[in-house]
Amino acid sequence: MTEKTPEQRLEALGVTLPPPPKPLASYIPWVMTGNLLFVSGQLPLVDGKVLHPGLVGETVTAEQAAVCARLAATNALSVAREALGSLDRIRRVVRLAGHVAAPSTFTGHPQVVNGASDFLAEVFGERGRHARVALGAPSLPANACVELEILFEAE
Amino acid sequence: MTEKTPEQRLEALGVTLPPPPKPLASYIPWVMTGNLLFVSGQLPLVDGKVLHPGLVGETVTAEQAAVCARLAATNALSVAREALGSLDRIRRVVRLAGHVAAPSTFTGHPQVVNGASDFLAEVFGERGRHARVALGAPSLPANACVELEILFEAE
Amino acid sequence: MTEKTPEQRLEALGVTLPPPPKPLASYIPWVMTGNLLFVSGQLPLVDGKVLHPGLVGETVTAEQAAVCARLAATNALSVAREALGSLDRIRRVVRLAGHVAAPSTFTGHPQVVNGASDFLAEVFGERGRHARVALGAPSLPANACVELEILFEAE
Repeated sequence: MTEKTPEQRLEALGVTLPPPPKPLASYIPWVMTGNLLFVSGQLPLVDGKVLHPGLVGETVTAEQAAVCARLAATNALSVAREALGSLDRIRRVVRLAGHVAAPSTFTGHPQVVNGASDFLAEVFGERGRHARVALGAPSLPANACVELEILFEAE
Repeated sequence: MTEKTPEQRLEALGVTLPPPPKPLASYIPWVMTGNLLFVSGQLPLVDGKVLHPGLVGETVTAEQAAVCARLAATNALSVAREALGSLDRIRRVVRLAGHVAAPSTFTGHPQVVNGASDFLAEVFGERGRHARVALGAPSLPANACVELEILFEAE
Repeated sequence: MTEKTPEQRLEALGVTLPPPPKPLASYIPWVMTGNLLFVSGQLPLVDGKVLHPGLVGETVTAEQAAVCARLAATNALSVAREALGSLDRIRRVVRLAGHVAAPSTFTGHPQVVNGASDFLAEVFGERGRHARVALGAPSLPANACVELEILFEAE
């Protein structure tokens, strides 16, 4: 029995990736340099609308924000698939930066960003284990509660 | 007719790059590793003074901040030119991180950072189209309203 | 007389690196791609506890935060040593991102992050001079006053 590929795992998880979101401004969804695929910042968008807008710890719970982090990760994967043709060409998730819109009293950034990290592990297995930075932000574009930036290594 | 080079476009735009800003502390303006040129965070400095200090959405308007983003980008290009000898050796703008000093009610980060993105497109054309992340910050060094970090791929 | 290696300098400085901190969540301490070593975000942890928690400029002074930045850097070096076997295999400190938990009135981010930059220069000499970005954050994981992300180039 051979190991499942990321595309097969995604199917087994019952996850259908959304269409790659259009950038909100004058930049592009991804750039590849050498083997590195830089994906632009992704928000928790569903059909162009931000899920659970607001500050985590105020109007948004950490659990809701973790769902948003997972959703933003699906958008990043959608961009990566568009860039590479297939997620199976991803050799490694290198780095995840997770930005959490939160007040000064919030300390649960890691739990929020885990929504994305756990999902990447589900889809990519060992290849999905990544270096990470989790940070607070006073506000994010479109009043999103989470923004993710993901760097991949591709074949 | 051949396409204009970045240096020629800059001249056509009537933009004279400022002298590369001195780092505010114990680090250096750029590091090159392989083909990747990492430029240190750039503020909207004119003659060593920060333009439009303060929070965007409070004492600084989004329009003023977009001007600051463009100005910070000229400082980043000045550093890149110093590193490479000429902007014509830039093969690609890879990544732009735009940090906007703003309160929790602000949502217009993309429009502010467009001041830099649009400028990079003007100077580099297709090669200027980049991956991007736009984020809020409660405060930035020297009370700047914008800080940019740019990653280039060079020849 | 040959130049001291980073491991020798560390010893001369009398610095014993802490054991590499365990990630606070579902990610890993480092990823290497090509010659680039990405180390996950590091907090000022001593024996698993955050030193000087809180906001810089409120309950934490800039001087205390600079000590925390240096401490977080020792944790990053501990991870890098674990990744590479020896710090002597580091060819270059490429990029340091320093995030400072601070209110909107704070402007001393560079001085805080210097706690890390100066330490890297002490340990790595010329090879320790890096590109840098210093930013404010409203809050950081575990109520830390500083979080660092460091990118190394390795042999």
